Amino acid sequence: MKRYLTLTAGAAIFAALPLSAQGTKTYPAPGEIIAAAKAEEWAALAPADLLVMDLAPDAKGKARRVVIQLMPAPFAQGWVSNIRKLAAAKWWDGTSVNRVQDNYVVQWGDATEKKALPETLVKVSEADYVFPKTLSRPRLLDPLFVPPNDISRWTSFHKGFPVAGVGTPDTERHWPVHCYGMVGVGRNLSPDTGTGAELYTVIGHAPRHLDRNIALVGRVIEGIEHLSSLPRGTGALGFYEKEEERVPIVSVRLGDKVKDVPAFEYLSTDSTSFAAYADARANRRDPFFNVPASGADICNIPVPVRRKAK
Amino acid sequence: MKRYLTLTAGAAIFAALPLSAQGTKTYPAPGEIIAAAKAEEWAALAPADLLVMDLAPDAKGKARRVVIQLMPAPFAQGWVSNIRKLAAAKWWDGTSVNRVQDNYVVQWGDATEKKALPETLVKVSEADYVFPKTLSRPRLLDPLFVPPNDISRWTSFHKGFPVAGVGTPDTERHWPVHCYGMVGVGRNLSPDTGTGAELYTVIGHAPRHLDRNIALVGRVIEGIEHLSSLPRGTGALGFYEKEEERVPIVSVRLGDKVKDVPAFEYLSTDSTSFAAYADARANRRDPFFNVPASGADICNIPVPVRRKAK
Repeated sequence: MKRYLTLTAGAAIFAALPLSAQGTKTYPAPGEIIAAAKAEEWAALAPADLLVMDLAPDAKGKARRVVIQLMPAPFAQGWVSNIRKLAAAKWWDGTSVNRVQDNYVVQWGDATEKKALPETLVKVSEADYVFPKTLSRPRLLDPLFVPPNDISRWTSFHKGFPVAGVGTPDTERHWPVHCYGMVGVGRNLSPDTGTGAELYTVIGHAPRHLDRNIALVGRVIEGIEHLSSLPRGTGALGFYEKEEERVPIVSVRLGDKVKDVPAFEYLSTDSTSFAAYADARANRRDPFFNVPASGADICNIPVPVRRKAK
Repeated sequence: MKRYLTLTAGAAIFAALPLSAQGTKTYPAPGEIIAAAKAEEWAALAPADLLVMDLAPDAKGKARRVVIQLMPAPFAQGWVSNIRKLAAAKWWDGTSVNRVQDNYVVQWGDATEKKALPETLVKVSEADYVFPKTLSRPRLLDPLFVPPNDISRWTSFHKGFPVAGVGTPDTERHWPVHCYGMVGVGRNLSPDTGTGAELYTVIGHAPRHLDRNIALVGRVIEGIEHLSSLPRGTGALGFYEKEEERVPIVSVRLGDKVKDVPAFEYLSTDSTSFAAYADARANRRDPFFNVPASGADICNIPVPVRRKAK
């Protein structure tokens, strides 16, 4: 009885089909464009720019590792330098994931609020939420994101990160934007800007109202499912109410201090293949789709990252 | 040692503070506006318009109930009528959640692909992805969403659901949009439109490229955490690879056939309080925020739903 292929139907929802059965012109799906990208279009991530967080094993004893790429210059480098110091000091070892709010964030750090911070941390200015200068971006992509969804005049990518900007060439300002998987710095009320010891990642629809209000210091490139599939906290703002609900953090280290971290690479956001991929995300013409959207939210064009083939 | 209130800092990230310590003018946070809305601004949801899905209890024996509000007219009523028939026939009982793809969808239905469907289901036309007429919307909200993030000329709300539209008054067309928690109908390649037996819900950034390509038939109003926190599937597209990974569905019924379903209500999207709430979501001026965004994605203004006070 094959009249109703529910599982196939499910698979077909987002799958790419290489050829149309009807023989009409077909377009590659985003995943096919990534797969066909040339080796030189992929850019290596330096291990020293990764933050490797090992959570305690899950209930079945399975390892849970989350790998974060730290934000590249010119953004948020004060907070990133603090994070490097915190990792070197093994500061997060023994802390925990304390908050999981559905469609919002997972947050981790010191739940006791009593752990002393390294004396060497710097205090970063609120001015550093934004980079106050012109920045290169792949202009070819601009039409995909016009119009953007807040006062930013444009959204684009810089060194593999989603960014927004406003201003004329003389007054341009740029900042990274909150998309799924981006990592930010918890803080208290202004003028506090946070140190980087209290971190969160986005596990829902992009909370773009946080842009320019909180420092973004990186993004999860592997293992986000170990955070996004955690039980939701039942306290206010999704905080866990009981100590035993918290998920222990065994260790957090920079990638160059961890022996078994694989080499990662991302599809350069300045590459021809990335432009084709972004266009395909914004205009799905592969066989499943009837109507292309003619545009996309910046957060709906996730930058491809993969383990480098050995 | 209180110099660094990490947990407080975390709580402060998104919390509303009723008064500014500095005595400057303060603005209510979105949650405060909801709390202050008048009783008559809340609209009751009819139990017959709810779909109540009980999953098997979790590993700790805890009940897992997901409540879905079915899409109101004029949208998707052919598929909704099928879903009512499937629930009446107890068709989903014994089926399962079969797919959990991070930052995308959770999908459920008959994994065997062999279960016979009720003969009374209707075949719905692709034309019904869109409602081809003018539709009322709260025009006050329009500036919040200008510009939208695809070719839709506007986004807004209709009867509590996020919608998009294009066209001049003579040629207006509208459709519901994919936001977090919206429920859609799996289908095969065009011209198939799906029956409603294979359903999914969004658990990540809004996949707006699916708008007008798949029928949206409702949204999860309670219990989405029972779906969004499930382990991610390790197969292609997030399908579970082993039968034992699937999450059994014990029963799916319309709300008027379930004895212990609470009364729900939503904040009318035509109400004054909803307009104030939407504005506050688009322009956060409560004390935590330094810079308001001056706009919001339609999916970042989730429609408030609550259990009605007894």
